[in-house]
Amino acid sequence: MKRQLKFAPIAALAAGFLLLAGCGKRANVGSYQGESNQIAAVIAQRNLTPDDVLGAVSTYEPSGQHDEYVMFASGGQSGQVLVYGIPSMRLLDQIPVFTPDSMAGWGYGGAGNAILHNADLAAGPTGPAMQVRWGDTHHPALSQTDAKYDGKYLFINDKANGRIAVINLHYFQTTQIVKNPIFYNDHGGTFVTPNTRYVIETSQYAAPLGNGYAPLKDYAAAYRGEMTFWRFDENTGYIDPKRSFAIELPPYWQDLAIAGRLASHGWVFCNSFNVAMYHDDDTNGKPSFEAGATQRDTDYLHIIHLAQAEADFKAGKFTRINGFPVIPLKAAIADRILYFTPETKSPHGVDATPDGQYIVVNGKLDPHVSVYSFKKILAAIAAGNYRHDQYGVPVLPMRETIEARVEAGLGPLHTQFDDKGYAYTSLFLDSAIAKWALGGEYEKLHPDVPAWSLVQKMPVNYNPGHLAAPASDTSEPLGHYLVSLNKWSIDRFDTVGPLYPEDLQLVDISGPKMRLLSDTPLGLGEIHYAEIIPYKMLNVARVYPMGFSPRTWQVLKNAVQSGQEKIVRQGNHVTIFMTAVRSHYTPEVVQLNQGDEVTWHITNIERTPNASHGLAISAYNVNLTLNPGETETVHFLASRAGVFSFYCTKFCSALHLEMAGYLVVKPAGAAAVAQR
Amino acid sequence: MKRQLKFAPIAALAAGFLLLAGCGKRANVGSYQGESNQIAAVIAQRNLTPDDVLGAVSTYEPSGQHDEYVMFASGGQSGQVLVYGIPSMRLLDQIPVFTPDSMAGWGYGGAGNAILHNADLAAGPTGPAMQVRWGDTHHPALSQTDAKYDGKYLFINDKANGRIAVINLHYFQTTQIVKNPIFYNDHGGTFVTPNTRYVIETSQYAAPLGNGYAPLKDYAAAYRGEMTFWRFDENTGYIDPKRSFAIELPPYWQDLAIAGRLASHGWVFCNSFNVAMYHDDDTNGKPSFEAGATQRDTDYLHIIHLAQAEADFKAGKFTRINGFPVIPLKAAIADRILYFTPETKSPHGVDATPDGQYIVVNGKLDPHVSVYSFKKILAAIAAGNYRHDQYGVPVLPMRETIEARVEAGLGPLHTQFDDKGYAYTSLFLDSAIAKWALGGEYEKLHPDVPAWSLVQKMPVNYNPGHLAAPASDTSEPLGHYLVSLNKWSIDRFDTVGPLYPEDLQLVDISGPKMRLLSDTPLGLGEIHYAEIIPYKMLNVARVYPMGFSPRTWQVLKNAVQSGQEKIVRQGNHVTIFMTAVRSHYTPEVVQLNQGDEVTWHITNIERTPNASHGLAISAYNVNLTLNPGETETVHFLASRAGVFSFYCTKFCSALHLEMAGYLVVKPAGAAAVAQR
Repeated sequence: MKRQLKFAPIAALAAGFLLLAGCGKRANVGSYQGESNQIAAVIAQRNLTPDDVLGAVSTYEPSGQHDEYVMFASGGQSGQVLVYGIPSMRLLDQIPVFTPDSMAGWGYGGAGNAILHNADLAAGPTGPAMQVRWGDTHHPALSQTDAKYDGKYLFINDKANGRIAVINLHYFQTTQIVKNPIFYNDHGGTFVTPNTRYVIETSQYAAPLGNGYAPLKDYAAAYRGEMTFWRFDENTGYIDPKRSFAIELPPYWQDLAIAGRLASHGWVFCNSFNVAMYHDDDTNGKPSFEAGATQRDTDYLHIIHLAQAEADFKAGKFTRINGFPVIPLKAAIADRILYFTPETKSPHGVDATPDGQYIVVNGKLDPHVSVYSFKKILAAIAAGNYRHDQYGVPVLPMRETIEARVEAGLGPLHTQFDDKGYAYTSLFLDSAIAKWALGGEYEKLHPDVPAWSLVQKMPVNYNPGHLAAPASDTSEPLGHYLVSLNKWSIDRFDTVGPLYPEDLQLVDISGPKMRLLSDTPLGLGEIHYAEIIPYKMLNVARVYPMGFSPRTWQVLKNAVQSGQEKIVRQGNHVTIFMTAVRSHYTPEVVQLNQGDEVTWHITNIERTPNASHGLAISAYNVNLTLNPGETETVHFLASRAGVFSFYCTKFCSALHLEMAGYLVVKPAGAAAVAQR
Repeated sequence: MKRQLKFAPIAALAAGFLLLAGCGKRANVGSYQGESNQIAAVIAQRNLTPDDVLGAVSTYEPSGQHDEYVMFASGGQSGQVLVYGIPSMRLLDQIPVFTPDSMAGWGYGGAGNAILHNADLAAGPTGPAMQVRWGDTHHPALSQTDAKYDGKYLFINDKANGRIAVINLHYFQTTQIVKNPIFYNDHGGTFVTPNTRYVIETSQYAAPLGNGYAPLKDYAAAYRGEMTFWRFDENTGYIDPKRSFAIELPPYWQDLAIAGRLASHGWVFCNSFNVAMYHDDDTNGKPSFEAGATQRDTDYLHIIHLAQAEADFKAGKFTRINGFPVIPLKAAIADRILYFTPETKSPHGVDATPDGQYIVVNGKLDPHVSVYSFKKILAAIAAGNYRHDQYGVPVLPMRETIEARVEAGLGPLHTQFDDKGYAYTSLFLDSAIAKWALGGEYEKLHPDVPAWSLVQKMPVNYNPGHLAAPASDTSEPLGHYLVSLNKWSIDRFDTVGPLYPEDLQLVDISGPKMRLLSDTPLGLGEIHYAEIIPYKMLNVARVYPMGFSPRTWQVLKNAVQSGQEKIVRQGNHVTIFMTAVRSHYTPEVVQLNQGDEVTWHITNIERTPNASHGLAISAYNVNLTLNPGETETVHFLASRAGVFSFYCTKFCSALHLEMAGYLVVKPAGAAAVAQR
């Protein structure tokens, strides 16, 4: 009844409201009255508050309208990269990286198999080869030129297995996976230097370098950490392991790292969280790692002079471990490559302000954000007023390196930056985001707000890990939006079983106060970190050049062309040259003998964007996705006799069900089958 | 300037508008003025039309508000099931089924490995065992009681490999995968009978039954289709292959099927699309399947008397193929189990009206929707005025079985139903949805709209395949929403490379006219079909009982409990009994000798919902997801020596990085390592 009374005036006002608000070129005057009645009715019926309506109109993308920003997010233990549109927070794509993905035809025959195989563990003195077919993606890093995004490449690490992947953003394809030759795990990865000369990967849980064995009782002497600098070659688009190197570090459980830029160009900063070198051998009821590793008040912020390290590498001042160049800890100390300064214990984030002047560290058990001054760090190094840790690494006094401490709240983890001189730090225990004002040259951007002061705390749901803001990791952050990557969702969404989705909350940071815009559940990954870039900065191809191979990243001269399809038998080797186009394969029948070795080339000869085809072969565990122009090759042994179908897994036309063929495998012993 | 002039009045009206519209309990009067200014500004700045605003307020879910409906969608060649909330169209979950999923810990050690392994191809006379680790999920079917959803189970098929999976919706977990013993592929699956007594799976591309070999020249004599009736046991929650059977069918490329209900209870209807039995042996330049299979004007709608088939099965009137009971085609004819009636060629959808009185078939090359009357089908059978196909199957004259033909548009594929007597048919070639009025008893629901008449056509973007509406496949459809599963997106979204996302368009069907509400890209699957159920009809658990094993689907009496953790060595067999709780493992160190055979039991002893943990073991390709109460077991050979970390892949607390341990494997030959 209450609603009834209100409906008429709501509709009347809504009509006027929309008449004016909706005057954009896309509006249709005739529809206002009806529209406004319905809008008012829906708002009342769904019981939306003004905040809800604001969130709705701020995030809704009309049919056919494109999102302004694209977010590249790690999928966590899914092993993949997720691509979201902002502000709609719609999931646009999943780029397969470390884990097979049959939808994308990744790891079920074709190029994906070759790239994944290259990243398996090779046989060696410590044991046989091991197939590793998943990853724990953590930190995506977009390529940069002059400390700004260039939209060309994306890098991502696999924490579980110490690997780095390269994704080419022209085609949104993984092109390379490199395995760290001296370490099994990482976490501090990936981070790029301002011109993407190096992709940085840092080990996490200390172990003997080179993957060897040593008992835990020899921890201090035999276990180590390390930081690897993978040299990226812009000309080829691949990491060049031959020009890459590592630095030996103490066994302090190194964590996140960040490359300096502008003022701090040429330097790298890295957290650690077990300087106590606690190691529970579990034979005497010692406390667990969570207690033992946090027993000290401070850990060490690692300060690394990359420029000097590169000089040493080029001068051959390294040893080789498993054939990989490693600058020994002693040399890193002697050549003034490595310094420490204390940081509050068990830090998560280490982030550089856009100008590279300040390094922001969050010790998750300290309510303060610690801001280090790079100038002061250089001064402290020059002053030489430092002690050494037990490995002889110089430890700069915190009082000489710290610029400010901002009381943000409980459980500060990670910090992002906007274009107005503010920083945003996630508070895991408070389930909130702290907005605080930067000092130094940033003060002029907010003259009325004191430097290094807390501005606002906004609750989120729940337990945020990383935050992501457009271009925050560059010299020119864009502000506008912030995404809070919340680890728990608890009561936010429909329950979908004991495995809960995470909650990605989109926050408007364009105004003086943060404002929550929307909640987005994530049920197929654990986003660890993400980077956000304006869509217009990307240069994405809609089709491949005809005959393009994702394996060689080239157009194959011998790619199958229309009219040249054939099946060639040489002894028990059968080579198939096949094309796919709406809506048939040529040839449509493949007749084999059991035991034949098969090489199956197939090219999608479409030129129309979106005209992708698939090739699924029953029983043989093969599924390819062939985008327009793409050519792929599958090898298999025809070990099983019988009649098998192959068909297109993409709904490519009204007759897609007819896009199929027969693979007929004649039992061994029978006479060979003629092939045309 | 134009905007400037308009801004003030927009704000004023918006204020009043919201003051009234937002009067729900959640509104905050103090904020109206500010809110309305901002809303008006956003609508103007984003250039939203009244339609856009209506779509926004109709689909936006405020933070913490739950979606009213849940959509279970096939992921297509991803091999998984995707779970969406409606109306927000947010992706809530991905349930791993046929393809390993490291995020969910499915297929990287634990129960998933066992369930996937059971569905691999076993070694046999035709060849060795084959590991099949992906699927092409097509048609999810929710379990039913009395022709209505009961919210207990979900079934889904794998077209590529002829398999059916069972998902338990209490935990959203795949519990069983069965491999069809006589066929390698399917498509018509899954469909359930009104009480979920049987789950129906129909073969697609004809082949010799039993997976044997026959040359294509023997197609008519040796190739066949079949329909399998998998008996589902409500008491156990598993399919019972021992009580399941199949019916032999002609090699007509059977497609979708639907179980009759109410009036047609006990009957099943199935399409076919290559009655021409065209088979290109590709040696003589014949046309492709898309041309050859569609050369006839009509194919056959299969009409199957399941009740009689079940009687024959129980009476032992079957032969066994690969040990599986199959009712021969001759017996199916003789016992009046199988009839045909012509249908326009190459149909896609076959759907039964909610009352089971009419069977709706869409021949995708005919602009008409064909409506068959079940009463007339029975009458035609009784009249006996029929010819026989070449296999002796009675063919009922179309003129005697057809009730009506509705001119819908180009490329009609699939039909759904609402609660007001209307049907909705996707038009692939028109890229539109046709809404049309049902006749018969449904006329009284729309007295002013003539029976079997087209009501509205609404364009979609682009090329819709299936449609999904709440409970459309039951005797009580709910209407309200319709989701158009569009195969192409072309220009709808930011380009993410040559592999385009699909476009899920949400349509409001609650009013007299269909209205588009939103577009949602899908970049990680190809949704083939979906079913939608009100969330409140599900009964979902938030945690497992303590010690629950997803492998045995029971609480394990010997699940590891807190305080009982240990490592037991017997010769070279090492058994680990481990617990996980925020934020540590007990024990935290596992010391092995190279070559040890390892059995690793681990239980997540949390009772807090959302407190999931993981267990990732570097290098060993193991990643488990352990939800509260869950217990898992992993077996592996410690083939590689060295120091490996294991850690929690879920961000479970502020100290989650410390939730780790060491797996130390001593090289072979050295003295055995003492274990506590």
